Amino acid sequence: MAAHPSRDTQLNTATKGLGDSRAGCSLQDVASLGWNILREEVSLPVAVLRQSRIRHNLHWMQDFMQRYGVQLAPHGKTTMSPALFHLQLEHGAWGITLATAPQVQAAWQHGIRRMLLANQLVGKGNMAIISRLLQDSSFSFCCIVDSAANADALGRYFAAAGQRLRILLEYGVEGGRTGIRSPQQEDAVLAAIARWPQALSLVGVEVYEGVLQQEADIRAFLQAVLARTRVHAAAGRFTEQNIILSGAGSAWYDVVADEFSGFDPGQPVDILLRPGCYLTHDVGIYRHAEQRIHSHNPIARDMGSSLLPALQLWAYVQSLPEEGRAIIALGKRDAAFDAGLPQVALHFRPGHDQQPSPAPADWMVVSMMDQHAFMRIPAAADLQVGDMLAFEISHPCLTFDKWRQLLLVDDALNVTGAVETLF
Amino acid sequence: MAAHPSRDTQLNTATKGLGDSRAGCSLQDVASLGWNILREEVSLPVAVLRQSRIRHNLHWMQDFMQRYGVQLAPHGKTTMSPALFHLQLEHGAWGITLATAPQVQAAWQHGIRRMLLANQLVGKGNMAIISRLLQDSSFSFCCIVDSAANADALGRYFAAAGQRLRILLEYGVEGGRTGIRSPQQEDAVLAAIARWPQALSLVGVEVYEGVLQQEADIRAFLQAVLARTRVHAAAGRFTEQNIILSGAGSAWYDVVADEFSGFDPGQPVDILLRPGCYLTHDVGIYRHAEQRIHSHNPIARDMGSSLLPALQLWAYVQSLPEEGRAIIALGKRDAAFDAGLPQVALHFRPGHDQQPSPAPADWMVVSMMDQHAFMRIPAAADLQVGDMLAFEISHPCLTFDKWRQLLLVDDALNVTGAVETLF
Repeated sequence: MAAHPSRDTQLNTATKGLGDSRAGCSLQDVASLGWNILREEVSLPVAVLRQSRIRHNLHWMQDFMQRYGVQLAPHGKTTMSPALFHLQLEHGAWGITLATAPQVQAAWQHGIRRMLLANQLVGKGNMAIISRLLQDSSFSFCCIVDSAANADALGRYFAAAGQRLRILLEYGVEGGRTGIRSPQQEDAVLAAIARWPQALSLVGVEVYEGVLQQEADIRAFLQAVLARTRVHAAAGRFTEQNIILSGAGSAWYDVVADEFSGFDPGQPVDILLRPGCYLTHDVGIYRHAEQRIHSHNPIARDMGSSLLPALQLWAYVQSLPEEGRAIIALGKRDAAFDAGLPQVALHFRPGHDQQPSPAPADWMVVSMMDQHAFMRIPAAADLQVGDMLAFEISHPCLTFDKWRQLLLVDDALNVTGAVETLF
Repeated sequence: MAAHPSRDTQLNTATKGLGDSRAGCSLQDVASLGWNILREEVSLPVAVLRQSRIRHNLHWMQDFMQRYGVQLAPHGKTTMSPALFHLQLEHGAWGITLATAPQVQAAWQHGIRRMLLANQLVGKGNMAIISRLLQDSSFSFCCIVDSAANADALGRYFAAAGQRLRILLEYGVEGGRTGIRSPQQEDAVLAAIARWPQALSLVGVEVYEGVLQQEADIRAFLQAVLARTRVHAAAGRFTEQNIILSGAGSAWYDVVADEFSGFDPGQPVDILLRPGCYLTHDVGIYRHAEQRIHSHNPIARDMGSSLLPALQLWAYVQSLPEEGRAIIALGKRDAAFDAGLPQVALHFRPGHDQQPSPAPADWMVVSMMDQHAFMRIPAAADLQVGDMLAFEISHPCLTFDKWRQLLLVDDALNVTGAVETLF
C-alpha cells in the first residue's frame, strides 16, 4: 500500500456534477478548466463547497478550540475527503477521527498519520487492516473499547501479531449507544485489558454525548466520566505520560469543551474534541445546534461570528407539470433527507439573470424520490423548466456520501478545484 | 472518452467491504484471492450479491417478459453497475434505462450502447454530455419530454449542434410526478416539437405509473395513454417505423405488461418495461409488491417461483452495552433506511459455528445512525460482540449507492468476484 496524495488522483468522469474535461485530467487540474456553474458548464445536480465559507469555518473552529485550550480531532467520517482532512490539519487539528477500519486505511493511504477510531475495532478483517497500518512506525493510532470480549479478542489478535494497540475506555449512558454503563462492566473490561499487557495499552477515555438531549444530563455524564478518569489516573492505569480524553460530536462540542477544559487528574491530558460537521455546517440540525451554542456559550458569543453553511447543491427545475408543483432534478441520491429536506436558497435563470437571487421563502421541498424532489410553489411563482436552484441541506454526512467528487467554488461560482470522497 | 469495460477496472482499496489484496489488483482478479466472508477475510460491513439468486432473478424476469411478448429495459439507476448491466443484456434486455445524463455517460463508457433516459434532458451541461455521446454512431438513445419550454431548449441546442435527438412524450397524472396532464399541455409540447423538425424526432410515448397506489387507477391511466398513442400514430406524428412505448417501475410491471402487451396502433411497437429492482429484489417494499403480483397475475402464478432477495449486508455485533440492546456496526452509510430498516436474516459466530443459522424473529433493528444500527433483542439472546449477522434490506437503489464495490458470493460465501458501482 502506497500513499496517494489527492493531487495525483484522476478526475472520475464516470460520476455526476462535472463539466467537460480532457482525458487523464487530475483533480489538481480542475481549477484550470475554467468551469462556471452559472454558465451551465457543469452537469447539474452538482455539489459545491463555497470556499470562502469553508475557510471561515476552519478559522472559527480553530479559534474556538484555542480559546478553550483543547484540541480538535475532527470526525472525518463526515466528509471522508482527504483533501479536506489536510485542510483541517493545516488549520490546527491534532489529527483525524474516523469511524471504521476501512476509513482509517483510506486516510492513511492519503497521508494522514494521526488518527482516533471512535469505535470498537471488531472482527479479524478489520483488525488485519489496522495491523497492516501499524507496520508504519509513523502511524499514531488508538481505538475504543467497551467490552471485555472485544478486549480479549484484540489482545489475542495483536499479541499474535507482536504488536501493541493503544485503546481508550468508552463510557456510555443507559438507553444510549455504545460505552460502559456499570461498575461491573468497567471491572470486566479493565480485567480483560490487564490480561494482555504486551498487546493492549490503555491510553485514555472516550465518550459520545450526542445520544443525550438535555444539557444538564450531558454535563452530569461528562462529570461522572472525569471522576472515573481521575480514579484510573490515580491507580496508574494509563500507560503513557499524556492521557487522551475525547468527546464531542457536532452538536454539543461547546459543553464538552466547557466541562473538559482545565481537567487535571495529576498528569498531562490531551483533550480531543471531535466535531466533524463544522466544516460545511448546514441549515438544519447543525444550524439549530449552533443557535443554542450562540445563546448559551460565552466564548462563542464573544467571537461575534458563527459557522456558515458552505455546502450547496445546484439543480434544475425538471418539470412544471401542474399548478403549485415543481419537480426538481435532485433526489435522495444527491442530498440527505433524514434530518430535514433540502431548502432552496437561490434562484437563477440561465441566459437571463446576471446573478442568482434569494429564492422566495414559500418555495418548499415537500418530498423526495431517488432522483427527484417535489417542491411546493405558489400558483403565480416565476419559475421555468431549466431554471437553476441552489439548495442548502440538513446533515452534511449523509450528503457528502452521495458524491464521489465535490467542486470548490468562489463567490462568483467559478470552479476553483475539486475534492474526492472515499466512502 | 474511451470505453472502459469493467474487467480492466482496478479494485478500489480506499473503500469498505474488502479483504487484503495485492497492489494493482483488478476487479477481475478478485475471484482468485480466495476470500470467504465466514472466515473473516473481508472487512465488515460488506455488501454481497448472492450469485445463485441473481441468476434466478435474471431468468425469472426474462421468462416473464417473454411470456408477455414485451421487452425489458431495466432501470440502471438501481445498481449503476456496468457489470450488472451487461448481465442484464446477456439475459435478454433490450437496453438499459437511466435517470440522468451522467448515468448515461457512465454506461456508455462501459460499453452500453442502447439506452433510454427516463427523464427530461435539462440544462446545457447535460445536453452537452448527450451531444458528445451522439457523435458515436453506434449509440442509440432517447429521452422524454413533458414541457414545451424543454422541447424548445432541446431543439435549439441540438439544431445548433447539427444533431437529431429522439424523444418520447411523457404522460403523467394529477398529483403525480412529471408528465403531461392536460390536452393543452400536450398541444403545446407537440407544437414545440414541430418547431424543430431537424433536431427533434418523436419516436414514442413514456409513462411512470409508480406514483399511483391503486391498480384500477393505474389501468385507467395506462388505457388513456394507449388511446393518445393511437391518436398520435394515426396522425403520423411518430418519425420511425417502430413506436417505442415504455412504462413500469419495479412495483407494477405486471399490470403494465398486461395493459401494453398486444397493443396495436397500426404500426409496430417496441414495448419497453423498466423494472430495475428485480435483479436483487428485497425483503421490504418489493417483496410486498411481489406478493400482490403473485396473488393477482396469472402468468407470474403460472411460473411457480418468484424473485429472491439477493443483496445481503454482513456486519458485526459492535457492542452489547445493556440488556435488550445490541449495537451493530452497520449504519445509514451502508443500507437504505427510507422504506423500512434492514432485517436480520442470519447469525454466525466466527471460530465456533460451522454454518450461519437463521436469526430469531425477535431480533429487530429499531433505529439507525450514520455508522450504527440499534437492534432490540430479548434479554436472554445468545449474542456476543464479534458475532456476524446477515441483513436483508428494503429498497435496493438506496443500498447500492452506499457501496463503490459489491462482492459476488456463492452459497458458501466464497467471494467469486466484485462489481463496481458508478454513482
